[in-house]
Amino acid sequence: MVNYTVAEIAILLDGKIEGNAALTINKVSKIEEGSENSLSFLANPAYIPYLYTTKSSAVVVNSDFVPSQAISCTLIKVKDAYQSFARVLEIYNQNKIEGEGISTQSHIDKTAVIGKNVYVGPFSSIGKNVLIGYGGKICSHVYIGDHVEIGNDVMLYPGVKIMANCKIGNKVVLHAGVVIGSDGFGFAPQNGNVYSKVPQTGNVVIEDFVEIGANTTIDRATMGSTIIRKGVKLDNLIQIAHNVEIGENTVIAAQTGIAGTSKIGRDCMIGGQVGIVGHITIADKVKIAAQSGIMTSIVNEGEVVQGSPAFGKMSYSKSYAVYRKLPELNTKIYQLEKELEKLKQSLPIE
Amino acid sequence: MVNYTVAEIAILLDGKIEGNAALTINKVSKIEEGSENSLSFLANPAYIPYLYTTKSSAVVVNSDFVPSQAISCTLIKVKDAYQSFARVLEIYNQNKIEGEGISTQSHIDKTAVIGKNVYVGPFSSIGKNVLIGYGGKICSHVYIGDHVEIGNDVMLYPGVKIMANCKIGNKVVLHAGVVIGSDGFGFAPQNGNVYSKVPQTGNVVIEDFVEIGANTTIDRATMGSTIIRKGVKLDNLIQIAHNVEIGENTVIAAQTGIAGTSKIGRDCMIGGQVGIVGHITIADKVKIAAQSGIMTSIVNEGEVVQGSPAFGKMSYSKSYAVYRKLPELNTKIYQLEKELEKLKQSLPIE
Amino acid sequence: MVNYTVAEIAILLDGKIEGNAALTINKVSKIEEGSENSLSFLANPAYIPYLYTTKSSAVVVNSDFVPSQAISCTLIKVKDAYQSFARVLEIYNQNKIEGEGISTQSHIDKTAVIGKNVYVGPFSSIGKNVLIGYGGKICSHVYIGDHVEIGNDVMLYPGVKIMANCKIGNKVVLHAGVVIGSDGFGFAPQNGNVYSKVPQTGNVVIEDFVEIGANTTIDRATMGSTIIRKGVKLDNLIQIAHNVEIGENTVIAAQTGIAGTSKIGRDCMIGGQVGIVGHITIADKVKIAAQSGIMTSIVNEGEVVQGSPAFGKMSYSKSYAVYRKLPELNTKIYQLEKELEKLKQSLPIE
Repeated sequence: MVNYTVAEIAILLDGKIEGNAALTINKVSKIEEGSENSLSFLANPAYIPYLYTTKSSAVVVNSDFVPSQAISCTLIKVKDAYQSFARVLEIYNQNKIEGEGISTQSHIDKTAVIGKNVYVGPFSSIGKNVLIGYGGKICSHVYIGDHVEIGNDVMLYPGVKIMANCKIGNKVVLHAGVVIGSDGFGFAPQNGNVYSKVPQTGNVVIEDFVEIGANTTIDRATMGSTIIRKGVKLDNLIQIAHNVEIGENTVIAAQTGIAGTSKIGRDCMIGGQVGIVGHITIADKVKIAAQSGIMTSIVNEGEVVQGSPAFGKMSYSKSYAVYRKLPELNTKIYQLEKELEKLKQSLPIE
Repeated sequence: MVNYTVAEIAILLDGKIEGNAALTINKVSKIEEGSENSLSFLANPAYIPYLYTTKSSAVVVNSDFVPSQAISCTLIKVKDAYQSFARVLEIYNQNKIEGEGISTQSHIDKTAVIGKNVYVGPFSSIGKNVLIGYGGKICSHVYIGDHVEIGNDVMLYPGVKIMANCKIGNKVVLHAGVVIGSDGFGFAPQNGNVYSKVPQTGNVVIEDFVEIGANTTIDRATMGSTIIRKGVKLDNLIQIAHNVEIGENTVIAAQTGIAGTSKIGRDCMIGGQVGIVGHITIADKVKIAAQSGIMTSIVNEGEVVQGSPAFGKMSYSKSYAVYRKLPELNTKIYQLEKELEKLKQSLPIE
Repeated sequence: MVNYTVAEIAILLDGKIEGNAALTINKVSKIEEGSENSLSFLANPAYIPYLYTTKSSAVVVNSDFVPSQAISCTLIKVKDAYQSFARVLEIYNQNKIEGEGISTQSHIDKTAVIGKNVYVGPFSSIGKNVLIGYGGKICSHVYIGDHVEIGNDVMLYPGVKIMANCKIGNKVVLHAGVVIGSDGFGFAPQNGNVYSKVPQTGNVVIEDFVEIGANTTIDRATMGSTIIRKGVKLDNLIQIAHNVEIGENTVIAAQTGIAGTSKIGRDCMIGGQVGIVGHITIADKVKIAAQSGIMTSIVNEGEVVQGSPAFGKMSYSKSYAVYRKLPELNTKIYQLEKELEKLKQSLPIE
């Protein structure tokens, strides 16, 4: 990070300074690990005690925060400390440029068309009739198959593999080891138990602003396209099967798997290690708890589910609370049976 | 796709034409997205309405299908529309050749022996004493370790890694990022809590016609071989541990894991995200529902199980139906206790 | 394996010979698959019968073992046959050297500093200001980002990717396709449902003697470090999120995921496909059964848990036993209700 003054950072964040506007900032650090010239942030109330002892030169806080003790650091008061700090980190991060120009150790087919200011790292391979926009970074060991189309300002980390005919939008980020466009898992049984492959002739379409985590795999459609809509964020080691469609701005945590042809709504939040079967539809704004198994469509917008098979999260929690007491319940039923029997036998009736 | 006539396609599929046999076909499309010169298929009854409005030139249907309205397309009637269409897509797909010859940007040890008509892409590395049959495609960024043996007509997608001493059969397909022959997870505790590695000196053997999905990992045996038998199909992101054996034509969905030394029968169907513990045996033709946990051997051929730990799928479903009502059950038991108590107190008896 | 005599192996293992000390050993094999000049081991009593028929020249057994029948092989008696054999396999394995020297087909930035006797394979890329100790093996297709520091005697298998600024200790083993230092999954919602990325400016620190399985992913910290402590062993396809810390000698099986900022104790044993939510703490020596979901901190050292959400393993098993009988329980409650009603109606009271 180059040197900034507290005043410059406050302008950047649209913040108000309480303290010394002339201090130099050249690094960021956690509030409890601060040192001279470092900038920290305070968003979580649990960390307030550190404010009174921090060695950071300046701390970004929410505008409604009022210290209850004396402080030695300068405060930068902003509307939302967490978001503002994210902005600072982004600037800080701009130093992490991978490289420039086209490596002489890359392989680029002569029919590929690459825009201005694109970086291509060593050992990357770009196939026939590939189109790439401007400004992107294609790190080392990236494979881009024939007829792939890629937008502007993408970030393809080392070892990304994009198979033939797929389409990648603008400002897409694919982390290391991501595979886009592997064959869908389609086999037709024939002659007893031998399977013959159903050719997978479609592609994958990834729209603008999508980010996909390390070693995640997205299969191409049998026909048509597997589609990841604008702004979707996928974590690491996720499996997206053929012909799936994921709606705008849906966020999915690590190791979740979505089976073939299922359609996920927009603005959904899906936890880690969730499994979603094939050929179902999930409504918009649905929330799915981690490790859930979704076996049927979810039709109500904003539903919140848990369990395998999943149902309403509140109901699931109540059932699970009883599940933990099942041995007691079992004993109670046994005792009820015994007592009732005793009662019946002690009575002259029936 | 090159140009075909409807007549040519009908011959290929052993089908009967109803309509214009001379029409040109040069692409395939979904029935609802058809256009002139495209071929579609109709296997799922839900899509029948599209037949009457499709713009496809020809549609492949089952031989017993009779349209209930007027149609403008030509029909090709076949025994099994789904399988026939798969055959057409296969032909269509034959255009997707990755490349030819041996890239000058590859690394091939001088002791490696490679058969005729093998493609080796840029940045692929082939080690000492490797043997490769004829006709295979080894795409870019593939690693083949020393002493590996590979059969004929294999397809190794970009970034496949086959570690030393493993054996790959004929017509095997390994998708991008697959790792074959990584070390098994074997550590012996010693000196308190420090672990020392148990060397993994075996290999992996993959028989003919196996297909393995993207980023799946198969560990080498501690001694002997981890074995994937003929015709097995594995989806993406699966973990197969050391010394596992998977029987012929077994199919396993994404993100399933099989722990060390377990032996899976032939013709099994295993869902996604299943976990199978080590040192057990699964009988032939067993079906395991998605997300199940298999903790003990399954000895009966054709058993169908679910749950974690898994038991009979029907029984599991019944238990789960009650699980969803557990809070009500809990209340009922409470009321029964109260009523019984009340009854007892209202009676003169003891 | 080069030729050894039984006498040499006995010295190596601190064992006592019963039989012919001069026999030649040049391979290792399972006791049931032995042949001349091979060495086997016998640790599991189930394999004792093979001892009397094995064709292995020598068998390593525990010092207290006494054969009950005549044997034709030579015995090497040691304190712990399993561990001793591991030692032999380790020696045997030392032949599996990947290569020597720096490949001319690699890419090494001129500012990188590499120690003595390091192997760098073809198509590996080493960035700016990288520091690497002595004696390591960096196989093919490895990516090492700018400013990465790596210790001595590491083993980086093909396709390992270490992103910028991460630190790797001595004798670390990273299997094929491992990704170290991918961005943490951090996004702040803003403007409705659009997410903006929280820059991930920290790194990953991997201490000495750590081994990490194929295609496992470890995200860099948002700030500070994601830390994998000394002696930790991670299996394949595991996901470790940003700012996680894993204590010394903890062992984790395949496909487990740990969400952001959680802190795992030392000497823990975590099964496969476990999910651990973010922002919690797991005490030392905790054992977590496969497929469990950990939703809250575990504060007691040595606790053993199961389930999703997990609780005590014994309690879980008891609850699960009742779960399997839930339909019967349901029927019993229904019958109790009916009988009680009948009883009440047959009585003159109320």
